[in-house]
Amino acid sequence: MNEDSNKNSQAIGVFDSGIGGLSVLKELMRAFPNEDFIYVGDTARLPYGSKSPETIRKYSLQIMNYLLTQKVKAIVIACNSASSQVHETEYKGIPVYNVITPGAKKALEISTTKSIGVLGTRATIQSEAYKKQLLKLDPSCKVHSIACPLFVPLAEEGMDQHPITNQVVAMYLQPLLTANKVDALILGCTHYPLLIESIRSFTKTIELIDSGTAVAETIMKDFKNKKISLRENPHQQQMILQTTDRSDHYKELARNILGLEKSQEFQIISL
Amino acid sequence: MNEDSNKNSQAIGVFDSGIGGLSVLKELMRAFPNEDFIYVGDTARLPYGSKSPETIRKYSLQIMNYLLTQKVKAIVIACNSASSQVHETEYKGIPVYNVITPGAKKALEISTTKSIGVLGTRATIQSEAYKKQLLKLDPSCKVHSIACPLFVPLAEEGMDQHPITNQVVAMYLQPLLTANKVDALILGCTHYPLLIESIRSFTKTIELIDSGTAVAETIMKDFKNKKISLRENPHQQQMILQTTDRSDHYKELARNILGLEKSQEFQIISL
Repeated sequence: MNEDSNKNSQAIGVFDSGIGGLSVLKELMRAFPNEDFIYVGDTARLPYGSKSPETIRKYSLQIMNYLLTQKVKAIVIACNSASSQVHETEYKGIPVYNVITPGAKKALEISTTKSIGVLGTRATIQSEAYKKQLLKLDPSCKVHSIACPLFVPLAEEGMDQHPITNQVVAMYLQPLLTANKVDALILGCTHYPLLIESIRSFTKTIELIDSGTAVAETIMKDFKNKKISLRENPHQQQMILQTTDRSDHYKELARNILGLEKSQEFQIISL
Repeated sequence: MNEDSNKNSQAIGVFDSGIGGLSVLKELMRAFPNEDFIYVGDTARLPYGSKSPETIRKYSLQIMNYLLTQKVKAIVIACNSASSQVHETEYKGIPVYNVITPGAKKALEISTTKSIGVLGTRATIQSEAYKKQLLKLDPSCKVHSIACPLFVPLAEEGMDQHPITNQVVAMYLQPLLTANKVDALILGCTHYPLLIESIRSFTKTIELIDSGTAVAETIMKDFKNKKISLRENPHQQQMILQTTDRSDHYKELARNILGLEKSQEFQIISL
């Protein structure tokens, strides 16, 4: 049996301000069942969505430097607010994946009308990160962006398919969908897949693009192009969950989202 | 003309994690029109409601130490999450007012059934700060507490009297009000007065107790009892607004809540 090389056997680092990135981690764990993961949730300072660009970048780089000390082989920024402030595709020799570029590419691949909807937090929408990326990839496309600030608290309350959530979805999406020929809708916040049923029951046949799936596809492409090393032998997946503050509510949500055992440990770190 | 003494002319320091405390500041500025105020909103680290007790206390003491360097004559903790972790009534020789004790006292004064409702963030309700204070003041009273985590984002979106807010109010309050003889309801989060119309249209004749009014009454009593010095001469009120992060949305909300001039400055500080 060949041993995986030293680099291959390192974990992939994933971070977010808190809850939302768990939807990305879940998708990555599913897509790469032989890979180990270290997930950092910056729960002491969440949410990033309401902070200024310079503060979001400062906090993100702190976490990336921390992950480097943990010897990760790649970093996934599983947070749209952070992704809109960290444009590096490589950091100190390690590949870095944000959640914006893969989502934008996938939307353009799927769309035939080239009329793309983007949902996000106020900070993500104001940063125009998706709009800029979409227009860079296809200057002729039309981008319709909507800030949906109530989606995060509804997701954190686990209120998918609740009548109140359905009304909030309609409040935000009605003006977007009636006026435009949107046929691909980017869920531009990693919390939003947690409300997927409420969103899909309103958007019906429109393609919904979630960041987790899109970033997993990009990593798979990079593996095939030898830009990133993955384990080549079967391996029991290890996952380390770290947060910057203690929170029972967070643990409960993480257990539900990831389907964790009660025995899963949560480590508290300071950055 | 007698000059106010040095102590009298000092400002009153007020702080919160961000938006909510502005409802307390507004009430204090109205109740004490000759007093100056320094308000610190810890917007870089908001909200406190989802953080652990030890983190909330650490951040609160940092702000209190900062306010002391600004030579304030009193400190008002205009945040329920912080109030539940800072029990000092005096800090380094300066009187400290939290928003929990005054609200609890007022509820018991008003109530005839001695069945008191408390609404708050998850952290405030889990801390049982109001329940403990109410039972300390009247061991025979009944306390019914409900966590209302969606109220803060709805308040921050300025959605008072919106049909969605009315339904969220009903969702939280229906079980509380049908099963119990609650005749006094403490708004145990400084954001909640920003949803007062939606709450009142559901609670009808039940007395609503907001922290701002209750803490202003307590300060007035302390002034009469010579526990705190206030200016004795008419004076043009000065107000300094400081935040720990830059946010245009915050400025807009603060201007609306306090009815500020466009020229009002916001200073950014680091703690």
